[in-house]
Amino acid sequence: MVSTEALNALQQQLPELDWITSKVHIKRLSRDFYWFSPMLVPQLADKLADLVVKPRNEAELATLVSRCVEFGIPMTVRGGGTGNYGQAVPLEGGVVIDMTACAELQWLGDGLVQVQAGMKIAELEQRVRERRWELRCMPSTYRAASIGGLFAGGFGGIGSINYGPISTPGTVQAIRILTIEATPRVLELRGDELLTYHHTYGTNGILLDLELALAPARDWDEYLFDFTSIEAAYGFCRTLLDAAGIEKRELSLYDSQAASYFRDIPFSQPAGHFLVMALVAPHSRQPLTQLLAQHGGAQLWTQTFADAQASGLTLMEHCWNHATLQALKHDKGFTNLQTNYAADRVLEQLAELKAVVGDEVLTHLEFIRLGNLQPLITGLPLVRYSSDARLDEIMALHESLGIKINNSHTFMLEDGKHGGSLSPAILASKAANDPHSLLNPGKIRSLQG
Amino acid sequence: MVSTEALNALQQQLPELDWITSKVHIKRLSRDFYWFSPMLVPQLADKLADLVVKPRNEAELATLVSRCVEFGIPMTVRGGGTGNYGQAVPLEGGVVIDMTACAELQWLGDGLVQVQAGMKIAELEQRVRERRWELRCMPSTYRAASIGGLFAGGFGGIGSINYGPISTPGTVQAIRILTIEATPRVLELRGDELLTYHHTYGTNGILLDLELALAPARDWDEYLFDFTSIEAAYGFCRTLLDAAGIEKRELSLYDSQAASYFRDIPFSQPAGHFLVMALVAPHSRQPLTQLLAQHGGAQLWTQTFADAQASGLTLMEHCWNHATLQALKHDKGFTNLQTNYAADRVLEQLAELKAVVGDEVLTHLEFIRLGNLQPLITGLPLVRYSSDARLDEIMALHESLGIKINNSHTFMLEDGKHGGSLSPAILASKAANDPHSLLNPGKIRSLQG
Repeated sequence: MVSTEALNALQQQLPELDWITSKVHIKRLSRDFYWFSPMLVPQLADKLADLVVKPRNEAELATLVSRCVEFGIPMTVRGGGTGNYGQAVPLEGGVVIDMTACAELQWLGDGLVQVQAGMKIAELEQRVRERRWELRCMPSTYRAASIGGLFAGGFGGIGSINYGPISTPGTVQAIRILTIEATPRVLELRGDELLTYHHTYGTNGILLDLELALAPARDWDEYLFDFTSIEAAYGFCRTLLDAAGIEKRELSLYDSQAASYFRDIPFSQPAGHFLVMALVAPHSRQPLTQLLAQHGGAQLWTQTFADAQASGLTLMEHCWNHATLQALKHDKGFTNLQTNYAADRVLEQLAELKAVVGDEVLTHLEFIRLGNLQPLITGLPLVRYSSDARLDEIMALHESLGIKINNSHTFMLEDGKHGGSLSPAILASKAANDPHSLLNPGKIRSLQG
Repeated sequence: MVSTEALNALQQQLPELDWITSKVHIKRLSRDFYWFSPMLVPQLADKLADLVVKPRNEAELATLVSRCVEFGIPMTVRGGGTGNYGQAVPLEGGVVIDMTACAELQWLGDGLVQVQAGMKIAELEQRVRERRWELRCMPSTYRAASIGGLFAGGFGGIGSINYGPISTPGTVQAIRILTIEATPRVLELRGDELLTYHHTYGTNGILLDLELALAPARDWDEYLFDFTSIEAAYGFCRTLLDAAGIEKRELSLYDSQAASYFRDIPFSQPAGHFLVMALVAPHSRQPLTQLLAQHGGAQLWTQTFADAQASGLTLMEHCWNHATLQALKHDKGFTNLQTNYAADRVLEQLAELKAVVGDEVLTHLEFIRLGNLQPLITGLPLVRYSSDARLDEIMALHESLGIKINNSHTFMLEDGKHGGSLSPAILASKAANDPHSLLNPGKIRSLQG
């Protein structure tokens, strides 16, 4: 509980800042996409910032941090608020720092860009596209999500089929971090050491900007393909994933129930079939079509990049977490899981799972590569939610079948992708950069009283 | 033996063609790079065309073929003559058809180009670069070699680390073939079926043009790195090969003896060390440098793409077959092998080999991927030639260690990459397209009398 006096003093001392004080806006900016998880909702729904502030530049941010430290006010940083784990929810009130006004493209060179953390990914993508580059990977939430949020609380997504996740060495080449001290320091990190700040929910420093390597832009064609069996659909995807001669940006697979929520796309598919979604370069159309025929697939729908630009409708907003979002638009009874299958027995694992859960879990696979080019078959299966206990059971069932779960139903940093405990480097950076434990408090279990 | 009457009649009936009749030129245009092989030299040195002709377009070519069929005159097609297997040597005299005047770029679209077979690869690379594309793969002989020759008698090379060999599905998307008949037909082939004409030395039809998928152009930086041990050099290369975040176009490894022939590049390296050559995108310089440090390597030399353009000196003419060429400039006692190592035990295989042959075989590895993205560690080791018998022994030794040899010391089509026999599709196309067996005769053993 932060004292009203401290909050008033903070605002009075920094009248030039862009304060957001309306209850409605504070409520909205105290949330992220944790509502994907019926488990997180009761834990997080009443968490509220006392104030939200939108620094316009680094100087304003540094002044703000300095004063918050002076007054002992907790700070929680947010970008677009598209995280699923309550990353940006202020558990102990205080100030939410909305970074979306720190959104400058600082420079764009030959395949490298430096950008402030608050820039929306869609804007960054558009800006670099003007120079015929594109992002190496981005989430389906790119319209709302910030580039800083992708690094601090995200994973990868569209494009990871070529470049791996955002953490692949060589993709984020430098970051700058502001410390939480009376006189905040700016740290510049390059190379592997910057991964200490990856997926830490903004707990160990405030991400100021990032230097990112880019990919050459393509005008991706978008496709939906129909397959009568998961074996055929999976065989097609697995071959396409490994086809060096066919350039693609996205490849995912859905059962017909999961796909039935893509209602804004004019296609229809018999129940029991499987849908494959792909973004493929125009010059790879012929080998793609040949591969499709070889695997017995049929084209359901396609559009060009220009079509997508003109209509605003794109498959990029139907894959990854957007597949879940599209379902939730029509049926609030779903949540999802984040799964990694064993690359050599994905179909067996899915069959074993299906035998137990039936339609309680719907299939959604994403085909990507890791930073070392190993294939990764990951998933965001829709789960028909009934109770927390049953959701826990379903997660345990996955694990028992050898399907790894990255638990997206917890806001504790340790329990998500970090596998139970944080690295010494993360803990050391937290201690050094946030000595008063004011930054995004309550997210690191090992620091709880 | 072709009759003088027939040859005279041919020339008289087609006076408008560009005939090359000087002995010196005929001799030069009856050869290719078979002189890499001391085994092939005695077999091929006296083979001579009776005439060379340089058709300017498809119409001239079709007329020529028609008349040659009428007169029963053998035809052998050549591009730049950079093949190593005597592909373009006219074993039974007749007419050598020099395709280098059929060198039009027919169209260049979004990542696709159609080009006549006779265009020099370097010119094609330059033309597509003007539109910010580059070839997916090319041999080190790109200045002299034709694009048709790469398909008809080559493999891959620079760029194959990303896109696999030229035969990767999706790279060559269509070809047109002229048949050898009184009324020649033009065949258009797309997709997998066109592979029937790949690496067949122009025996089953005359390649007219190709439709090729391209890669986005980069301004590749060139690097030479020093390592004190093959383990360190190999470990670096293996990691770089698989590093999704570091964009590269070429990666190869040489022992210091093999590297000592790169005398036009100002670097020096202690004997017993190992050299790594790499072409890496400018925006990947930082992760490359970090990886180099992690593997204990040191940078010996580097230049930018602009440097290479300005000086004309490039590492692209020191890798693949050019590593052998650079050695042969200084020491005529070498030949080379074409080897594929077992990806999981390359160092063991090299050590076992070394234990037997010592410095008789020098190490040169190329790191690429196959069309299905599997890593391929291939080699062009220099061999100190002493006798045919010893060369056979050395090849047998490789095979006994599990190192696959693509025999480059034979002009018989079956005995090179085709593994002993030709596919039914190749044999059927030969029978259908060249019913009088006039095209590049003597190269298919199973058709010999």
